[in-house]
Amino acid sequence: MPRFEHLRHQEPRQLAAPRELVLACAPLRSRVNLSRIARAAGCCGVTRILCTGQAKLDPKIARDAAQTVSLEIHRSLPPMLAKLRGEGYRVVGLEQTTGSTDLHHYSFEKKTVLVIGSERQGLTEEVLAELDAVIEIPVWGMPFSYNVATATAMALYEYCRQFPG
Amino acid sequence: MPRFEHLRHQEPRQLAAPRELVLACAPLRSRVNLSRIARAAGCCGVTRILCTGQAKLDPKIARDAAQTVSLEIHRSLPPMLAKLRGEGYRVVGLEQTTGSTDLHHYSFEKKTVLVIGSERQGLTEEVLAELDAVIEIPVWGMPFSYNVATATAMALYEYCRQFPG
Repeated sequence: MPRFEHLRHQEPRQLAAPRELVLACAPLRSRVNLSRIARAAGCCGVTRILCTGQAKLDPKIARDAAQTVSLEIHRSLPPMLAKLRGEGYRVVGLEQTTGSTDLHHYSFEKKTVLVIGSERQGLTEEVLAELDAVIEIPVWGMPFSYNVATATAMALYEYCRQFPG
Repeated sequence: MPRFEHLRHQEPRQLAAPRELVLACAPLRSRVNLSRIARAAGCCGVTRILCTGQAKLDPKIARDAAQTVSLEIHRSLPPMLAKLRGEGYRVVGLEQTTGSTDLHHYSFEKKTVLVIGSERQGLTEEVLAELDAVIEIPVWGMPFSYNVATATAMALYEYCRQFPG
C-alpha cells in the first residue's frame, strides 16, 4: 500500500472573508505572464487585478481564473493607487529598490495592493512615488532576477501564509 | 525626492555553503515550465535538477540559469531518489495526496530532494512510493491548482525562507 495517494479535485480552503489583497500590474509585455499571475491569484482567492492598456488574459493559461479574477483596466495606475490608499489599503511594490524590505521579514497588512512592475523596466518613477513600502525577494544566484510571474507567485504565497484564511 | 529608487544588478546573497536542495522533475510536457523552474532554481542558488527523458532548457526563459544549473538526465527517477535517500536526503514530493503536509507548516530538512510531478499526471505511483513526505500548497479559489512552475517557485521560496543562507 502506498502511503501517499493522489487526491485531486479536493475542496479548496474557505476564506472567512473575501481576500483584501489587490494586484496592480504595470503594462506587462507578455500576456503569458499576466495570465500566469491571474491563475496564481485565482488559486489564492484574489479577485481583483488592476491593469492598464491592452491587458487581456489567455484563458488557456489563466484557466478558470479568467472567470473569477476581474481585470480592471485603467488609464494609469498612480491615481488608482492613491484612491486605494484613501480606502485604507497599504500600497506595496515588488521591486529591487533602496529602502526595500526583504520579503522574508515583511509583515503584510491585510488590506494590501501589491504592485507589479513590467518585465524590463519594473516600476516607473510615478508608481514608485505612490508606494508605502517595497518588498524584495532575496536572490542567491544567476540570473539574479526572478521572472515577474515567479516573483508574484512568491509574494502571493507569503501573503497567504500570513493570512491563511 | 522619491523614497524608493531602482537598484538593479545588486550583489546576490552569499550562501555559507552550497545549497543542499536538489530538484527532481518528472517528465514535463512543457520545456517552458522546466525552463521557468530552472531560472527560479538558479536564483535560489540551487544547482542540481534531476530529469528524465528529453529534458532541455530554453535559454531564453532559463536565462543564465542554463549555465549554473545542471540538468542531470536519468532513465527513471525512483532509483535516483532511493540513492539520494541513502546519501541522507529527505525525499519530498509536491503534490495533492493523502497524508500530505500544508507547506505553511512544513519544516524542511536542509538536505532535501524536492520532487515535482508532470503537469497532468503529477507524481506517478512509483515515485510516490519513494517519498518520505508530501507537501501541498493551500488553494482558495479557481482554477484550484497551481501551474507546476508556480507551485515549484512557492516551494523554493519556502525552503529559502527557512534556510536564507
